[in-house]
Amino acid sequence: MAVTFHQATLPNGLTIIAETDETAYSAAAGFFVRTGARDEAPEVMGVSHFLEHMMFKGTEKISAEGLNREFDRLGTRNNAYTSGELTCFYASVLPERMDEMIDLLSSMLRPALRESDFATEKKVILEEIAMYEDNPFWVLYERSMEEYFGPHPLGHRVLGTPATINAMSAAQMRTYFGQRYSADNTVVALAGKLDFDACVKRIDRLCGSWERTAPARDSTAPLTRQATIALRDAKVTRAYALMVAPGPAFGDDRRYAASLLAQVLGGPDNSRLHWALVETGIADQAESGYDPRDGTGDFMLFVSCDPERLGEAWAITFKQIEELEASITEDDLAKIRAKIATGVTLAGERPGGRMQRLGRQWTYLKRHTTLQEELTRINAVTAEDVKRVLREFPLTNRTVGTLVPA
Amino acid sequence: MAVTFHQATLPNGLTIIAETDETAYSAAAGFFVRTGARDEAPEVMGVSHFLEHMMFKGTEKISAEGLNREFDRLGTRNNAYTSGELTCFYASVLPERMDEMIDLLSSMLRPALRESDFATEKKVILEEIAMYEDNPFWVLYERSMEEYFGPHPLGHRVLGTPATINAMSAAQMRTYFGQRYSADNTVVALAGKLDFDACVKRIDRLCGSWERTAPARDSTAPLTRQATIALRDAKVTRAYALMVAPGPAFGDDRRYAASLLAQVLGGPDNSRLHWALVETGIADQAESGYDPRDGTGDFMLFVSCDPERLGEAWAITFKQIEELEASITEDDLAKIRAKIATGVTLAGERPGGRMQRLGRQWTYLKRHTTLQEELTRINAVTAEDVKRVLREFPLTNRTVGTLVPA
Repeated sequence: MAVTFHQATLPNGLTIIAETDETAYSAAAGFFVRTGARDEAPEVMGVSHFLEHMMFKGTEKISAEGLNREFDRLGTRNNAYTSGELTCFYASVLPERMDEMIDLLSSMLRPALRESDFATEKKVILEEIAMYEDNPFWVLYERSMEEYFGPHPLGHRVLGTPATINAMSAAQMRTYFGQRYSADNTVVALAGKLDFDACVKRIDRLCGSWERTAPARDSTAPLTRQATIALRDAKVTRAYALMVAPGPAFGDDRRYAASLLAQVLGGPDNSRLHWALVETGIADQAESGYDPRDGTGDFMLFVSCDPERLGEAWAITFKQIEELEASITEDDLAKIRAKIATGVTLAGERPGGRMQRLGRQWTYLKRHTTLQEELTRINAVTAEDVKRVLREFPLTNRTVGTLVPA
Repeated sequence: MAVTFHQATLPNGLTIIAETDETAYSAAAGFFVRTGARDEAPEVMGVSHFLEHMMFKGTEKISAEGLNREFDRLGTRNNAYTSGELTCFYASVLPERMDEMIDLLSSMLRPALRESDFATEKKVILEEIAMYEDNPFWVLYERSMEEYFGPHPLGHRVLGTPATINAMSAAQMRTYFGQRYSADNTVVALAGKLDFDACVKRIDRLCGSWERTAPARDSTAPLTRQATIALRDAKVTRAYALMVAPGPAFGDDRRYAASLLAQVLGGPDNSRLHWALVETGIADQAESGYDPRDGTGDFMLFVSCDPERLGEAWAITFKQIEELEASITEDDLAKIRAKIATGVTLAGERPGGRMQRLGRQWTYLKRHTTLQEELTRINAVTAEDVKRVLREFPLTNRTVGTLVPA
């Protein structure tokens, strides 16, 4: 693939980036809005996610049904997601429909936000929250993150709470939209077979009039806590346990070593936790991961097991963490590196995957790194790098949560 | 992408095909064995799927754990599946590990089939069957297919039954393996960045000694039945309904029109059934699909709804089918064509997707069609073609099954 990087910024601050590839069979576009639960005032917690739903309700000129039919007519594969830090609307399509798809996505990003749709969708969001309340790990995760981040908005729930959603008004949503969905808070990422200059012109025609609002975000690292949460619930039959501790931020070069660290400790197969807890039958699930964020990052670890064995499973987990620095070898890394490299490469092989990588990277870092550069970085991580991350981000600075049957 | 097709056949009949692409970032390989539930004697029903599990238990030289560690070391994304007609073992990897991965897959395809592993895995299979028995649609599907295909082995259950699995011996499995996993019943499909001639040499070294057995399959179209199955079960709370009727075979040029037909009738959005049943709130699910097979093909339709409304939902479904021929338009097709074209293209963009398309196509048809040729075929389908399929395969030749609360 002959991939070429392009970048343009409209006078209003909207940034457009692309990895074009003349030989690709498809094209992809994503609007990445740098806004999520961490950017919400506590009283409108959940507004970013609720707004993501509302974007599919149509514009002043297009009904919700018209929008759906139009995506269908173009044959797109389209969707959206909201995280604590990012809201993304994206689609893939055959190259000859890319122009129309860009027009459609650009139009969609200026929704009507009708009162009647707002009232209807509020019920859908409340049902979504209720559904997640049936998921023990989710309940434990949300409660633990609230304790871990304390008053810092990174502890906000992406879906909001029944109280904040019920109390929210369409006017509050419009205000939030006006501040956050501005030109200078949005990155448009494109990938695949496309004419970059022509795409920029189309985006300018529809988005060139968007306002610039210079929206703020406090990206300093939060003061995380070392709390202990012990929940009981008559509905659950297994024991669930979770641990979270600080790690490097998205923009920190140590994130590659951090990612390898989490894999060695608790990747899905052949990891320390897998052999110590799952293969021995002590736990049915034991995994850890690393999630880089804006200004900070988290190491996260989950275990589920028979409630009778929770003490034992947790003791083994903490022992594995304690012994990790002394026991980690180059051989551990070689194994994991190969897996990560394959995963990164497969994700980047499709324009849809490239667009996601590109959009997220630019939204977080305002710079571009090629796939090859990232693979080189991953391959360069040594056991000593991982040990240093363990010393600089000790996994003992942790908040621990458990959920067991009442 | 500059994709080149290659084909080679070893003296023992093993066929190796590839779509190479110098500019790809990964490589993929799949061993497609032309065997599945339809090739099983009734007393060993489920042996193909059970055997798929056993292939991961290692060879005379490699333990199960060694096999897993080796896949891990190479950083592969690997898996396997069994259908009524096909068993496939496949993996994706970075190009520099392709040689070793081919060696590993080739070795794996000659498993030890140890008695002790057989006994252990039998329990896993029985648990898998028990788990599926909790899935109402699955129960209804299996019972309906048995009635629809009558004594024809296409009615066999892929997982087998508790009775056939319990009664099965390792010796029976070895006999089946010897007959069906032969060189002339296997296709190796490769895709992505790879040296075809070098791959053929490696495969020859490990698979060149495999036996040729000229395994038979009766691929004539089965005499399907028009049966009615009415199941009741105290465990279910909703009503489930299913319809199956004959359609064109995999090798039949009418399969493109058949696929569009199923989408217009019951694709996930904007289809006739979606608007008539889901949007109106009469059913929570109403979809249809088309599944081409060897010598035959099925149109399949599923509905789930409130048990009180099953009669109404079914009446609307049959009315939609009745009116389909008169109501289908070029506009319907344009919409669906765009979606199918995008789906086909996205699947073909990754070597892993190309390998699957290539392997399945050759296993069924012993010929190669380029992605572009397939898109051209899809785009050439007219409303009249779809109407002809409806006349030649009337959806009234159907078996109908329902499962409702006791």
